[in-house]
Amino acid sequence: MKIKIINPNTTHTVTEAMARIAADIVSPGTAIVAASPQFGPPAIEGFYDEAFAAIGVLDEVRNGDAEGCDGYVIACFGDPGLAAARELTTRPVVGIAEAAMQIAGFLGASFTIISMVERVRPMLDRVVAANAMGERCRSIRMVGIPLLDFDGEGCRALIETCRAAVVEDRAECIVLGSGGLGAYADMIGREVGVPVIDGVAAAVKTVETLVTLGLATSKRQSYAFPPSKTYTGSFEGFSPRPPAAGPVGARP
Amino acid sequence: MKIKIINPNTTHTVTEAMARIAADIVSPGTAIVAASPQFGPPAIEGFYDEAFAAIGVLDEVRNGDAEGCDGYVIACFGDPGLAAARELTTRPVVGIAEAAMQIAGFLGASFTIISMVERVRPMLDRVVAANAMGERCRSIRMVGIPLLDFDGEGCRALIETCRAAVVEDRAECIVLGSGGLGAYADMIGREVGVPVIDGVAAAVKTVETLVTLGLATSKRQSYAFPPSKTYTGSFEGFSPRPPAAGPVGARP
Amino acid sequence: MKIKIINPNTTHTVTEAMARIAADIVSPGTAIVAASPQFGPPAIEGFYDEAFAAIGVLDEVRNGDAEGCDGYVIACFGDPGLAAARELTTRPVVGIAEAAMQIAGFLGASFTIISMVERVRPMLDRVVAANAMGERCRSIRMVGIPLLDFDGEGCRALIETCRAAVVEDRAECIVLGSGGLGAYADMIGREVGVPVIDGVAAAVKTVETLVTLGLATSKRQSYAFPPSKTYTGSFEGFSPRPPAAGPVGARP
Amino acid sequence: MKIKIINPNTTHTVTEAMARIAADIVSPGTAIVAASPQFGPPAIEGFYDEAFAAIGVLDEVRNGDAEGCDGYVIACFGDPGLAAARELTTRPVVGIAEAAMQIAGFLGASFTIISMVERVRPMLDRVVAANAMGERCRSIRMVGIPLLDFDGEGCRALIETCRAAVVEDRAECIVLGSGGLGAYADMIGREVGVPVIDGVAAAVKTVETLVTLGLATSKRQSYAFPPSKTYTGSFEGFSPRPPAAGPVGARP
Amino acid sequence: MKIKIINPNTTHTVTEAMARIAADIVSPGTAIVAASPQFGPPAIEGFYDEAFAAIGVLDEVRNGDAEGCDGYVIACFGDPGLAAARELTTRPVVGIAEAAMQIAGFLGASFTIISMVERVRPMLDRVVAANAMGERCRSIRMVGIPLLDFDGEGCRALIETCRAAVVEDRAECIVLGSGGLGAYADMIGREVGVPVIDGVAAAVKTVETLVTLGLATSKRQSYAFPPSKTYTGSFEGFSPRPPAAGPVGARP
Amino acid sequence: MKIKIINPNTTHTVTEAMARIAADIVSPGTAIVAASPQFGPPAIEGFYDEAFAAIGVLDEVRNGDAEGCDGYVIACFGDPGLAAARELTTRPVVGIAEAAMQIAGFLGASFTIISMVERVRPMLDRVVAANAMGERCRSIRMVGIPLLDFDGEGCRALIETCRAAVVEDRAECIVLGSGGLGAYADMIGREVGVPVIDGVAAAVKTVETLVTLGLATSKRQSYAFPPSKTYTGSFEGFSPRPPAAGPVGARP
Repeated sequence: MKIKIINPNTTHTVTEAMARIAADIVSPGTAIVAASPQFGPPAIEGFYDEAFAAIGVLDEVRNGDAEGCDGYVIACFGDPGLAAARELTTRPVVGIAEAAMQIAGFLGASFTIISMVERVRPMLDRVVAANAMGERCRSIRMVGIPLLDFDGEGCRALIETCRAAVVEDRAECIVLGSGGLGAYADMIGREVGVPVIDGVAAAVKTVETLVTLGLATSKRQSYAFPPSKTYTGSFEGFSPRPPAAGPVGARP
Repeated sequence: MKIKIINPNTTHTVTEAMARIAADIVSPGTAIVAASPQFGPPAIEGFYDEAFAAIGVLDEVRNGDAEGCDGYVIACFGDPGLAAARELTTRPVVGIAEAAMQIAGFLGASFTIISMVERVRPMLDRVVAANAMGERCRSIRMVGIPLLDFDGEGCRALIETCRAAVVEDRAECIVLGSGGLGAYADMIGREVGVPVIDGVAAAVKTVETLVTLGLATSKRQSYAFPPSKTYTGSFEGFSPRPPAAGPVGARP
Repeated sequence: MKIKIINPNTTHTVTEAMARIAADIVSPGTAIVAASPQFGPPAIEGFYDEAFAAIGVLDEVRNGDAEGCDGYVIACFGDPGLAAARELTTRPVVGIAEAAMQIAGFLGASFTIISMVERVRPMLDRVVAANAMGERCRSIRMVGIPLLDFDGEGCRALIETCRAAVVEDRAECIVLGSGGLGAYADMIGREVGVPVIDGVAAAVKTVETLVTLGLATSKRQSYAFPPSKTYTGSFEGFSPRPPAAGPVGARP
Repeated sequence: MKIKIINPNTTHTVTEAMARIAADIVSPGTAIVAASPQFGPPAIEGFYDEAFAAIGVLDEVRNGDAEGCDGYVIACFGDPGLAAARELTTRPVVGIAEAAMQIAGFLGASFTIISMVERVRPMLDRVVAANAMGERCRSIRMVGIPLLDFDGEGCRALIETCRAAVVEDRAECIVLGSGGLGAYADMIGREVGVPVIDGVAAAVKTVETLVTLGLATSKRQSYAFPPSKTYTGSFEGFSPRPPAAGPVGARP
Repeated sequence: MKIKIINPNTTHTVTEAMARIAADIVSPGTAIVAASPQFGPPAIEGFYDEAFAAIGVLDEVRNGDAEGCDGYVIACFGDPGLAAARELTTRPVVGIAEAAMQIAGFLGASFTIISMVERVRPMLDRVVAANAMGERCRSIRMVGIPLLDFDGEGCRALIETCRAAVVEDRAECIVLGSGGLGAYADMIGREVGVPVIDGVAAAVKTVETLVTLGLATSKRQSYAFPPSKTYTGSFEGFSPRPPAAGPVGARP
Repeated sequence: MKIKIINPNTTHTVTEAMARIAADIVSPGTAIVAASPQFGPPAIEGFYDEAFAAIGVLDEVRNGDAEGCDGYVIACFGDPGLAAARELTTRPVVGIAEAAMQIAGFLGASFTIISMVERVRPMLDRVVAANAMGERCRSIRMVGIPLLDFDGEGCRALIETCRAAVVEDRAECIVLGSGGLGAYADMIGREVGVPVIDGVAAAVKTVETLVTLGLATSKRQSYAFPPSKTYTGSFEGFSPRPPAAGPVGARP
């Protein structure tokens, strides 16, 4: 089985870090490939960045189908392009935000999302609402330091932020609200004493489960293939074409 | 005042029809300009089409700001690119779906959305949910005939669909769930006897109100300007740049 | 077009101030008339006051129909008598609370309502819930000074209250929760830097839009005319009578 | 203990029928008085009628306090004037709609409301929503015959309507959505085989419970006494006055 | 009429205290019996304890039916075993949490639940959610002292906790979230000045009302008798058997 | 890794069938053990049966911890005993209902639950509500034939029921609402053309994921260990004891 992690931003060091984490947790026989789009924002901090990142995600899904990938992870906590990607392919597509919040639900009755800077809060608010997780999400807390500036002081701030979530907000789990925080999950868990969920790990294992169970995206209603048509101008290459035959909702 | 109607698809005959409807209802002194993107889908039937249409919408908003427009209407019933467009500019941006559903709320306690073909239902379901209109939206009914094939028989099917919404679903208003149905609003109202809301008209008047009241998009939190950064590859031209000074939430 | 602003309380100085604000923002050709009921409470501070104010509102709507008014604004933030008024007439009736909260939704993802004294909070809580705005309404904050005692110190308290809403509650817009605060909207906007919505202005423009679009209140279900009957005693003069012919949901 | 049933309409035969039902079910030592307002609608079929009925209810509560009543039942299924009445007095005030729907919740997971004619449906929809009973209320069904024309055929229609609610809508209880249907409760229960809740009986027993337990309406926040002021014109006699000392939330 | 109070834990001193409170408030002719299960937890502090307590509750209901009881109160604030008990018998079964929260709704628009120690909070959170009381429940506050250690200092802490709920959380009523706090209700009411609802009293009066009105648990759908079958092993004695004839939803 | 499937009823043939399905889908190195309780109901058809089944589930979890199991699946679609089991152990516990409904969410926007007989509908309604899946669950449909009587005709009825869910209710996925239907999942998928989710498979893979990621149940708040105490009577052997040291929310 080949799972493709799509990091919707174009910062390749983060993409590679995600691939390493994923490789550690998959079953024997599962290969991980990871990619960033060929074009688009180097970081995703709001709805405008997301709009452009979504196109890159779709490009990578299309390429992935051609490369024989069996499923996709969208590795940005706003899950950009998720619904559109599910239209494009029959292979399972899972966002790290939805996967992380659902995994948290098996371990505790509530969670806090930890992210880096206030600017992304509206994007997180929206993904919480879109997944109907408003009741379970106790709070969204920001470390206040950009991920790329992270060092010893950043680590301490990260742990203190998580501890405050548990003590003051009564969060029963910590959800890491940024694709690049996965490397800190175990450390936070040891320090703070609650489950810490990394969305990349959660989503990779979810895709692996779906593929193992022979489950493909439903092509009834919401995620039916986009009707064939010719896009104008510079997007012509993305024109939806009639789908090749493929698995539809059951083991091939 | 200059209001720009952005038809997110690239079918110019529809764009022009919208402009004519709008020109009829604005106040003296308000000019209407209408445009379709230079690139993208000729029709918007799902989330994949919407992702590409959103980029065209953003391009037209950016151009509009340069051309001195005072506000924008996104004239597709899925409101594609709405949140991103609000980040990009301080001028008011209004989607036809949100405007139509809110106007309906001043006239009756419930409404039915009428659209053309089943393929767009998931897009409409999502825009209803995103606007928390699930309680008020009695049903979404499809005429079953594509808009471009519309003639006498189409008209009769349209009226019968609206009548069924009123009689069987107890809808108190009809919301036209397609940017191109505005020309039929008065006719349906006479035949069926309930208010019929055309989203393009509703959104144009809403933008006119916002501009008249000196109200600009809030730049706190959700719709703050996208942080400056350089996009890679073919999207470099869309890189967010520091905003020019402009009105921020109050009359300049 | 003639729009009638009904100030549900009997304090005429506030009524006149509202009329002046409205006259500034309507289109050429729109006339504003403003009135307070002939009887009832001089201020509306809770559900008991509202019950009596509602009768005055209905009296003024009935009079307005006789005077050839084209639409009505109910200018108290509890929207007293709104549903009953919609039954009584086909002309659009809009409350300042519903109009203000909906306008806010086009400018930001959340708002705080500002009002004067704690005593009115339950009335505001109820109007927020009745409009399903609980998710968007971040908080209701009180200046703590009655409007009629307002001066320089009151102004400073008002600005500080709005600033706290923005900074502490993350409100993206300010909604003025009292019909008499409209004169301060621009000043608050300049000081606090977010959109400030005055319900009277919002509702007047909404009625103007509805009339321009030829939209009348739906007479199916919720707002059907009250069945004819004879009220007993001192309310006999309010007995509902068979409606005159008139526009029903579409341009006449 | 003296409980006053206020029938908000002025049809005295119904008032007396309610009083007889209530007298049968109260404990020894509880007296029932029943009254209709001196003025207002003879039947309550929508929001306009309710607005006037509410004033009559308030008049009867004020009179009741002077007559030494210990609690009040508002006996119309829209619960008109309920919040205002709770402001006016410390004695418990209970509406038949809220009481009936809550009693149903102790006996089954869902209910259907049965009423007479379609015209009242919006009023019932609103009272269901105001009590957050939307999940539990399976349906609202109308017998289709006005109560005052009721005879053998009406009875059969009533039973068939209830049976359809149980069989087709899976209602586990029947809630009688009209103050005048109480006399049929036992008969329906025998015929249809589910609990049938009469709101008048439910509300009378609820008031009796509250008085027995020494519980009075809370005067914090929502139902604080209306601030003293002088109403103008014909409502001057209803001007709120400083409250007499009385029980506040606990056994006197 | 004979009402049985089932204290789901095995601490008999609390059971007896509840019986004394109940005996004070019932009507002439109503007898109270009270019991604790023969087996199970001496205190109920979470979901594990509740699972075992539920079996004891069911045993006591079965015994109660044999002893001619007319209705049951489950006297633990998590309402353990409530749905199962309703399946087992036609006699009304009422939990103290559901009864207390509903009674509070007749007296104020919101309440705070007061309990003893943090450990029970998840159980209370769940019972609030299960009764769809999340909007009305302002907060859950803990006194911080176990009930059995209660003395003068405990009393002061209890009053301060209630006062904080009223002042800081704007609670309009206090709901006592523990079966053993009933003896303090009047004292708290006098000190804090809002209604204080004891669930045991509320539930006992609710059962008395249901029995007086001839209302039995609905046997359609949710609470139909458990289908006959033979349980294996040590639970064989609890095997559901065909029900004896009895009242089904209406006065016998 | 050793995963224990607990079939809460005592019908061992079903238990063994589940074990076979699970063994087919786990990764190399994962062992499956399956058990039914030593006592309790042979089938679970409602809340009464569930109460007794929950005790058996807890007994099997306790045994499982002693036997070195790494995680647990509760294999009945009402998820009986789930919260209590999470208190008892640090090892992940997953119910088949919650797992199946969450997996469905990655494949389509809605689902229908298929089960066998009407008697279990209330149990399924409750598990849908408890997981806040009311919006996504289009319908619950019953085949109308008990599982144990299943043959060729049963198969045809099962397929027709699923087809009706897709065509009439617009379900995008099928969720099998009974632990024993897993063997039919592939066949239904081929016939009906949408993803078919078997809860046992979904839950087993979810536990495997949680264990692989080193995630244990949070011991803060909701699922903290039950406080030590001695149960009385026949449940003494279930008295909660101080927990052994073990993994708490992070990789050991």
